[in-house]
Amino acid sequence: MKKHFLLLVIFLFVKFSFAQNTDSMEIRAIYNEAMSNGKSYKNLEHLCKSIGARLSGSKQAYEAVEYVAMLMKEMGADTVLKQPCMVPHWVRGTKEEGIIYRKGLSPMPVNVCALGNSDGTSPTGIKAPMVEITSWRQLDSLGKRGEIKGKIVFYNRPMEPTEINAGAAYGKAGDQRWAGASRAAKYGGVGVLVRSLTHAHDYFPHTGAMGYVDTITHIPAFAIATLDADLLHYTLQGVAAVEFYMYDDCKMLPDELSYNVVGEIKGTEFPNEIITVGGHLDSWDLAEGAHDDGTGVMQGIEVLRIIKALGWKPKRTIRAVAFMNEENGGKGGAAYFEDAKRSDKKFIAALESDGGGFTPMGFSIGGKNKNAVEKIYGWKNLFEKYPFSKWDKGGNGGADVGHLQPLNTCLIELNVDGQRYFDYHHTANDRFENVNRRELEMGGASLAMLIWLISEKGLE
Amino acid sequence: MKKHFLLLVIFLFVKFSFAQNTDSMEIRAIYNEAMSNGKSYKNLEHLCKSIGARLSGSKQAYEAVEYVAMLMKEMGADTVLKQPCMVPHWVRGTKEEGIIYRKGLSPMPVNVCALGNSDGTSPTGIKAPMVEITSWRQLDSLGKRGEIKGKIVFYNRPMEPTEINAGAAYGKAGDQRWAGASRAAKYGGVGVLVRSLTHAHDYFPHTGAMGYVDTITHIPAFAIATLDADLLHYTLQGVAAVEFYMYDDCKMLPDELSYNVVGEIKGTEFPNEIITVGGHLDSWDLAEGAHDDGTGVMQGIEVLRIIKALGWKPKRTIRAVAFMNEENGGKGGAAYFEDAKRSDKKFIAALESDGGGFTPMGFSIGGKNKNAVEKIYGWKNLFEKYPFSKWDKGGNGGADVGHLQPLNTCLIELNVDGQRYFDYHHTANDRFENVNRRELEMGGASLAMLIWLISEKGLE
Repeated sequence: MKKHFLLLVIFLFVKFSFAQNTDSMEIRAIYNEAMSNGKSYKNLEHLCKSIGARLSGSKQAYEAVEYVAMLMKEMGADTVLKQPCMVPHWVRGTKEEGIIYRKGLSPMPVNVCALGNSDGTSPTGIKAPMVEITSWRQLDSLGKRGEIKGKIVFYNRPMEPTEINAGAAYGKAGDQRWAGASRAAKYGGVGVLVRSLTHAHDYFPHTGAMGYVDTITHIPAFAIATLDADLLHYTLQGVAAVEFYMYDDCKMLPDELSYNVVGEIKGTEFPNEIITVGGHLDSWDLAEGAHDDGTGVMQGIEVLRIIKALGWKPKRTIRAVAFMNEENGGKGGAAYFEDAKRSDKKFIAALESDGGGFTPMGFSIGGKNKNAVEKIYGWKNLFEKYPFSKWDKGGNGGADVGHLQPLNTCLIELNVDGQRYFDYHHTANDRFENVNRRELEMGGASLAMLIWLISEKGLE
Repeated sequence: MKKHFLLLVIFLFVKFSFAQNTDSMEIRAIYNEAMSNGKSYKNLEHLCKSIGARLSGSKQAYEAVEYVAMLMKEMGADTVLKQPCMVPHWVRGTKEEGIIYRKGLSPMPVNVCALGNSDGTSPTGIKAPMVEITSWRQLDSLGKRGEIKGKIVFYNRPMEPTEINAGAAYGKAGDQRWAGASRAAKYGGVGVLVRSLTHAHDYFPHTGAMGYVDTITHIPAFAIATLDADLLHYTLQGVAAVEFYMYDDCKMLPDELSYNVVGEIKGTEFPNEIITVGGHLDSWDLAEGAHDDGTGVMQGIEVLRIIKALGWKPKRTIRAVAFMNEENGGKGGAAYFEDAKRSDKKFIAALESDGGGFTPMGFSIGGKNKNAVEKIYGWKNLFEKYPFSKWDKGGNGGADVGHLQPLNTCLIELNVDGQRYFDYHHTANDRFENVNRRELEMGGASLAMLIWLISEKGLE
């Protein structure tokens, strides 16, 4: 009996080691293919340079949809489909103007841009005294004393440099951009100017979504570059009478029909079990949308290419998805979820890359299916020797795949070395040139490696 | 008895938790100071932009020594001294020429540079047929058949893209650059052209040290940019008669007197126990020496600044060192060791940052003193929430501090996210603009945090 038990232990150990070894070799083959023959960098170049900025509803967004659909076919998808969704169509119009007026001194133009979704000023612009605000408490206190009324509110709370995670610093400062206009308008503010959300000190204004509370007057909202925000801060300290002039003619047009693009390789054994991977195809109108998020889209497509190039047939269906309208509405992610909910398929896992095409560091694995999370987390040791070995449990995968949560989907976010991500984010500096080929291809590799394991082992 | 034991356990646990908590808060204070008020980026800008390239023996290297000595004082060193060493003085001379000649077609200039330490060509240059080599075996086999004689040898083995660690890929391809000339000359080769050591595909030729075997004829050695190497490869495949012309007038001048710069804050309790931290001050003549290694020098100095700024007094002596001549001789590191050997001080730990000023990822902790290695490794859990939490045991700290090994010093290397390091390495593209402020300051923070723990706890 004892001897049989021992033999069984040995047998199981050998079987386990052999399986581990096979897994290890298979994911290494994926890594090698990605790093030797990766195409995501080249594909990204076309998206950024030939199509460029592609805000939802724009002509370029339509062109990007057509390009990506074509590309998915070329890169090895069995089936490519366009999944319709209605998206907001916001347009910036002519170049914004922002000018500091100081009594007795020359007007001083600064680098500004309208925040996305914002209403424009009147055709003659707005000229008003300024008030600088660094906390909501301060706003409320001044507001109640009537000191916001008739003024342009300058929100100047910086992204905290001491935050360990740059994304956390972004999250903590982002309320100014999102909610600042309505909160200032409530007290009679006539416009807002928000310090750009970045750790960089430069002259790029950072756009990004803002929102209005419907019941409060809509006032125009601008971002101002960090160096200009510092200048304005010191001007307000030192000069008695400062006024600011802001002009733009941005506006929201009627919603437009747009699409997610979905390319898949059908699974051989469990075709109804779907693994989703991708990023969002839309970008802000000021940016080429390289790191945000052309890289995520191209890495998703790269997963398909790698599997085809290796001649492998996945047991489960793998879908690369280029989501539409992540930036100012999230309509693509919502449409993908609605379609998933109605289908008879099982959306077992969804991976999102939307933190920039930097060196991959690991995965956050979340979702309600705790067993699936544990199963995936159990493969962590296979990734120890790669840079992307720092895994954790939790999170919701990201803004697009997070919609799938009610379907019990395992939601996985690719984490990257994104300390410099917000230097580029939502600006004209989010360009193809700021993406590094090796780092980008490594991100695609990491996604393909994890997806292959999910595809072959399942999450039961 | 049992009760007393329990009380003791509780007491020790509380004491331990309290100590851990204090450690955690102290290193966080260091991190916050570095990220809020870091000066290494500004200091690096001056080194790169006002002084620039500073190869050992050059006028700029002397200027850099003076600048750094002044800076160390300004940043808070009690004592600054210049530690003399004799260094090689190699000069590039006029711009090199490299031209592909194809029968019946126009001459095709390509991007080349002389490898460091190389002899120049004759004043009329060298024009010879080419042979492309991708392995030593191939060289030996052709050499023995007389097919190297009279030719320019083109070493075209690339840095392996599938290596996980970019540094490992560099290490594996580096033999061509270092040893290629003498190995070709042995078979009668008249010059060598080495594919640039980088994963990037671009037009920057990468210089770097080469060496001659004294007993073999010294032939000139060039690097060629990777895109030009690819072009040359295809040319050699497709065109029958290809010759290459190379011209330069670089040469080795007599050795010069130069210096390491050492700035220290004396320890209050154990002033004879020295913790060394730094990088190398010299750079290749083509580069501003930003990532290689102005960043390491400035991070070392930043350690002093942070401690002073916090008003803390370290128990042990902390020394920032700017080493001279890492690139083409290692004379500075050797001089530092000789001085240490002769002194009555104990060089307990030495930390080197020479992998570029990218996001810090962790430390490799090596040296013969295994107890010290274990003690330091035991603090790893204090760093879990920072990006630099990937620690390992081993290594020799780096090219400069590695000299201290015989002194039982604990040798620590700062590891960074260096996937793109070799894109810049030893080229005109190693510029200040390619350093990210937040990433650089975070590297200085990580060094200061670990040094503080060593300083306060010791390594006994």
